[in-house]
This record gives sequence, structure tokens and C-alpha cells, in this order.
Amino acid sequence: MPPPVSPLAVDLPELKPLAGVRLGAAAAGIRYQGRTDLVLAELAPGTTAAGVFTRSKCPGAPVDWCRAALKGGRARAVVVNAGNANVFTGRAGAEAARLSAAAAAKLVGCRPREVMLSSTGVIGEVLPHDRLTAALPGLHAALREDGWADAARGIMTTDTFPKAAVRTARIGDAEVTIQGIAKGSGMIAPDMATMLCFVFTDAKLPAGALQAVLSRGVESSFNCTTVDSDTSTSDTVLLFATGQAKHRRVPAEGGPLLRGFRAALADLLLDLALQVVRDGEGAQKLVRIDVAGAVSNKSARRVALSIANSPLVKTAIAGEDANWGRIVMAVGKAGEPADRDRLSVAVGGVWMAREGGVVAGYDEAPVVAHMKGREVRIEVDLGLGRGRSTVWTCDLTHGYIDINGSYRS
Amino acid sequence: MPPPVSPLAVDLPELKPLAGVRLGAAAAGIRYQGRTDLVLAELAPGTTAAGVFTRSKCPGAPVDWCRAALKGGRARAVVVNAGNANVFTGRAGAEAARLSAAAAAKLVGCRPREVMLSSTGVIGEVLPHDRLTAALPGLHAALREDGWADAARGIMTTDTFPKAAVRTARIGDAEVTIQGIAKGSGMIAPDMATMLCFVFTDAKLPAGALQAVLSRGVESSFNCTTVDSDTSTSDTVLLFATGQAKHRRVPAEGGPLLRGFRAALADLLLDLALQVVRDGEGAQKLVRIDVAGAVSNKSARRVALSIANSPLVKTAIAGEDANWGRIVMAVGKAGEPADRDRLSVAVGGVWMAREGGVVAGYDEAPVVAHMKGREVRIEVDLGLGRGRSTVWTCDLTHGYIDINGSYRS
Repeated sequence: MPPPVSPLAVDLPELKPLAGVRLGAAAAGIRYQGRTDLVLAELAPGTTAAGVFTRSKCPGAPVDWCRAALKGGRARAVVVNAGNANVFTGRAGAEAARLSAAAAAKLVGCRPREVMLSSTGVIGEVLPHDRLTAALPGLHAALREDGWADAARGIMTTDTFPKAAVRTARIGDAEVTIQGIAKGSGMIAPDMATMLCFVFTDAKLPAGALQAVLSRGVESSFNCTTVDSDTSTSDTVLLFATGQAKHRRVPAEGGPLLRGFRAALADLLLDLALQVVRDGEGAQKLVRIDVAGAVSNKSARRVALSIANSPLVKTAIAGEDANWGRIVMAVGKAGEPADRDRLSVAVGGVWMAREGGVVAGYDEAPVVAHMKGREVRIEVDLGLGRGRSTVWTCDLTHGYIDINGSYRS
Repeated sequence: MPPPVSPLAVDLPELKPLAGVRLGAAAAGIRYQGRTDLVLAELAPGTTAAGVFTRSKCPGAPVDWCRAALKGGRARAVVVNAGNANVFTGRAGAEAARLSAAAAAKLVGCRPREVMLSSTGVIGEVLPHDRLTAALPGLHAALREDGWADAARGIMTTDTFPKAAVRTARIGDAEVTIQGIAKGSGMIAPDMATMLCFVFTDAKLPAGALQAVLSRGVESSFNCTTVDSDTSTSDTVLLFATGQAKHRRVPAEGGPLLRGFRAALADLLLDLALQVVRDGEGAQKLVRIDVAGAVSNKSARRVALSIANSPLVKTAIAGEDANWGRIVMAVGKAGEPADRDRLSVAVGGVWMAREGGVVAGYDEAPVVAHMKGREVRIEVDLGLGRGRSTVWTCDLTHGYIDINGSYRS
């Protein structure tokens, strides 16, 4: 029986065709039966590409492949499979990746290095690339400009809802569209949650400028979210620019012309990142943590992540307990500059502790009401400097233990 | 209804009087009703003292007090209360600590700075020192040489069993005894697990040598254990040497004469640390993680702690799933030098993955049997160097969520 849809789920937005992208999904039987598990997107000639990947020292073969392939800055296709992550599979895994890319390249009519690959699912089993390559021709023949929702569903593992976002931006006088799909926080026994995100735009952007806006956008979105502090071996965000929109020429270094695009992309990436957190394993509440007054933004982020990853803070939130003692604990253990006697803590906008002690006459009632809601906000002021950071997470519930503690079947 | 005793509990060892120590427990009504919550130990004149404390940047007032008091290297008394941690209580908390120490000093006939303090329990409420000081005279009058078991029980919060350990060691031709009690991994709503440990010896040791052996012993015991990665604001280990045993004079720098003592102390501290892990919140299994082949011992420890603190690894162990994919993930996210293609993983002594891939013909049966036991062993060989480390933890279960996610009452 599939797990119930997350109570924090959002609806799939309307996804329109985007010039230069045709895509679709098929059931290749890689691991699942009776559902789509293979997605192919074909991109117009001239499409540029950029990517950001997991920092794991044990990345999967598809991550290795993309890192090498992206050096060319071009892409004509993306192949994504669910059910097998092709991680910790040695030489056989690398070979499976190579053969998958070669098969897609032949269909699309490009070089294998212009095919990007992502895999998500079981670790330690070599990808059954024969099933994948057998399904590709039929899938390629059926690609459509309106295959977006199918693609969003095809990359799911145990995600409880499909994830997508759309934004528009101006480059000079022209309007361009940015449209992306993501999966994450689902779980395939026996594996960890993996986050994959594929974003497409019809803008015409040099590969270097594309990489710059993507790296910056990920920093303020996916790198500010955590479900359980466990970094996947497969995390991948890819951005493709098909160049079909007509607008002023964007210089190699990007620059001020991309200001609007950068903002729209950052907003879209944050939207997708928060959808992943909303589908966090067992999540019942979305938690926003704002840290201010740190000695630097970097220090503020470390403190915010220390709070966001604390099992004691997360279980308190699950219990609807505005437990600021645990928040103080998590600040203290972060290892960043902090002064107990300058520290202030608020939950739901109510300051419970100020400068090292409980606020006199603190009224718990509005905080208790806030904790019962689906969205919880924690604010911490370290009182030391001007560094600030915002991080999002979810609570830690029995659902997380159920999903991850059940024996492989 | 109190939680059931941990299935990993061990029996209290036989605790005999130790020359120079008289101790006992009383019910001061600090927070709990109908149980002891205040412990006093009086130490013979000339007793030296050493301590190791939490690295939290938000430590409690008693930790501040002890750090300052230990500069003298002498102690005549220890006062420990359960039910209130006296943390995040500002100037009033420091004053409560000062008054508690002064009251004990008056009874014992020493300076306040010769009284060590520890508090564990609720955060953010000033210690009701009047209740504490009111109970001290009666407690002092009733101190006994055989009050050890009472003391072990009196410092418990929601620990499910009392914790103690005894060792003997030779210094020159004489035998000395080391005897300690600890509490930890219990939980007082709304607070975090706190670890407190008090160790006493009849050896005659200069304060500097005492601090050196303690710091070293903590490094290979308490600093190698984790329940949930959350560092308390109150963690304290204190070591007292009453100097009542007759043995060769130990020089200020300690040195080879203390080799046996050092080993016995390290063994005792590890015993107590593992008792704390065995009482980890919701723990059903004790987990030992050995990392070898790292570039340094420090790097090995970081990798071992990354595995030990991974919610996905801990939930897999709770599910009796020998999920080496999650172990690979946790190695990869540690940020330490690692080469996926040299990595080997064993569970229960069976190597499941060697040098980057699954072992051919790997038989899961003995591993499945091992996972069903109370003690689980994970071995990782990074294949890079000679660094090694061992870390202990427990699994992450529904019990942890129950204990920490319930609303304060």
C-alpha cells in the first residue's frame, strides 16, 4: 500500500510546452512494476547546460558521467531512471552509464557526451541498462511537447506527490520561461532519499553564464534545506537553456542583463526545494528557521542547520512543543561564535527568550496555537553581528521511522 | 508510568566504600515528587580534582562554576541535583550556583571554590536553590561510606537504570581503586539528554596529572559515543583523587608510574559511556562502528561519527536491515578523504562490499542473523591509510520519537 500523500503537498502547476524541449515517460521495468520509471527529454540543437551535484565522496556513476559531460557545456538529451541509483557499482556501473548515454545519443543524433544521466533508487546493484536501452526507442518515438506532467511523475520514487514549478523573467525586452521538475525525499528500500531536479528555459544563455546563475541559485535554495542531514550519493540539479527565445545577446559572463532571470530562477529553485521538504519522509510540518545576528552569513547558516538537523528540535516540533531549551542546545553545539547571554529565541513571531533568559511574563498561548499549524517558524538572534541565514526543514515523526526502519522486502 | 527498563541494561556492580568519600542522596523536591533528586559527596581534605565539560557555546551555570573552581585543583564536595539544569538562566542562575556552593561549603568546612556543582533537568528555569540548600544539612548529616548505590540512583533523570563501574590499578607496589557513577540519555521534558559522570579514586595524584589522565580517558570513551548527535549544555565528567591510598609519590607530570592507572581509568570511563549508550532514548540495539584505513585517526573518527549519527543508518539498524548502501552514503557525506572504489564494508564480521562493489556470492544469512541480536557491529575499511577509530551508538526507534516528541506536561 503506498504511503498517504503528504499533508504538506501542493498541487502541480499548469505546465505548458517550452520551445526546444520534448519529453515523456515510459515503464521500463527497471525495478517497479506497473508504473513509469524512465524519462527522456530531447533538447533542441544548440542547448547549453549547467549542473550542480552532491558533495558526497562516494557519488554514483551518473554523477561522474554528468560532471565529465558538462565540460562541453552542451546537451541534447536527458535520461532519468527511477528504481536503481547505479551507485557503488564500480566499473560495471560506469559501463552501464556509458551504454545508456550511447543508446540515447544514437536516437537523438548527437554525441554521447551531449546526453545527461540521472539515476535514483537502490544502491549497489548495477543498473540493468539493457531494460533501459530496450525502452528508449519507443519512448523517443512518443516524445511530446506537453509531456511535462508525465515526466514529473516518471522520476518519482516514493515521493508522495509530483513536483514542478514555472516562472517567467525578462531578458532585455523579451520574456523567457523557466520550468522545472524535481523529485526527492521519497525513499526506495534500501536507500536514502535522493534529490533530482531538472530545469529548462527557452532563453539563449552561454554555458558559463548558465553555470553561474545555477550555482548561485542552488546556494539559496537546495543548500538551505534539509530533511535528515543525510547527503545522498546522487543529488543532481541540471539546468538547460534551449536558446529558442529571441532576446538580446547575453555575454559569456552573464552580467546585469540576467538580473531578472537570476531572481526568477532562484525563486523557482526555492519553490522546488520546499516541495521536496514538504514531501520529507514522515513530514507533518514545514519548518522555517531564521538566524540573525551571527558574525557572518556562513556562521548563521551553520547555526540554522544545526537547529534544523537536531533530532531533539525536530521531535519537539512533531510533538507541537515550542521547546526553546532544545533550540538553545542546538545553537550551543553548532561550534559557531555564540554568547549565551545575548541569545534571543522566538517561535511563531513571539520572543520567548531574550538576551540569555526567559522573557518576563511570556504568554505561551499564541505559541502553542502556532505550533499546532502546518508551518512553524523559529527565529534566533545571536546578538553578535549582521550575519543572517534562512533554512527550511520538516519535523521528525513516527512516519520517518516507519518508512526507513522497515525491513527490506 | 515510567518507561520500561532498557533491554540493553546492565546490573549495578558491587560498590564498596572508597577511602576518603562519604556520600548520599535526598529528596529535595526540586522538580520530582517522591524520589531522590539531590546527591552530596564529601571528600577528604587534600583531595585533588579534574574535569572535562561540554563544548557547547551555551553551557549551564554549574559548568561555568566548575570550570572556574577547578583552577584550584582541589575539591572537598560535589553537589548534584536532578530536575533542573540551571541553563540559560543568566545572572540569577549564576547566583543560584554560588549560593548552593556556599551552603555546601559551610557544612563541609571548606571554601565555596572547593565545592563542585552539576545540575541536570529542565532548561530556562532558575534552580530553586532554596529547596536545595534546605535539604543539604539533613543530607550532610546522613552521609555514609556506602551511599554509592543511592547516589547512582539520585542523579538519574529519566535514565531507566542506574550506572556505575569499578576498577583497580597498581601504582608502584600498591593497589588503588577507581569507582564512578554516571547518568545520561535520560530525558526530562522539555530538555535534552545530559551526561554526568563522577569518578573517585583513593590514589594520591597531583591535580595536573589527574587532569591529564582524565582528558585522555574521555577522548577514548565519552568522546567516542553518541546517541543522537545532540550535545548537551551540561555534560560534565569529574574525577576526584582522595589521596588515602599509600603508594609511591606520583610526580606532577604523572608519567610511566601511572600507566596502569591510566588504562584502568580509560576502561572504567568506556564502561560508563557504554552504559549511557545502552540507556539511549528508545535504544533497542548497541552499535559498534570500527573505521580503519583512514588517512588519520581523526579522519577515521569523523567518518565513524558520520555513520553513527546518520538517521538513515540508525533507522535501518532498528529495522534489522544490514543496509550497507546507507553506510556508504554516510561515509560519502563525512567530507573526509574517501575513495568509493577502495571502500569495504562489513556487518557482523561478514564483508558485504569490498573495494567499491558488492562481494561476489555474498551470503546474507549470517548478516541477517547478526542484525537480529542486541549488539551490532559495523566495520568500514577506507583503504587509504592507517588511521582507525571506534565509535559506539544505538539505533533510532519509535521509542525515541515517543520520548522526545510528546508534548510537555
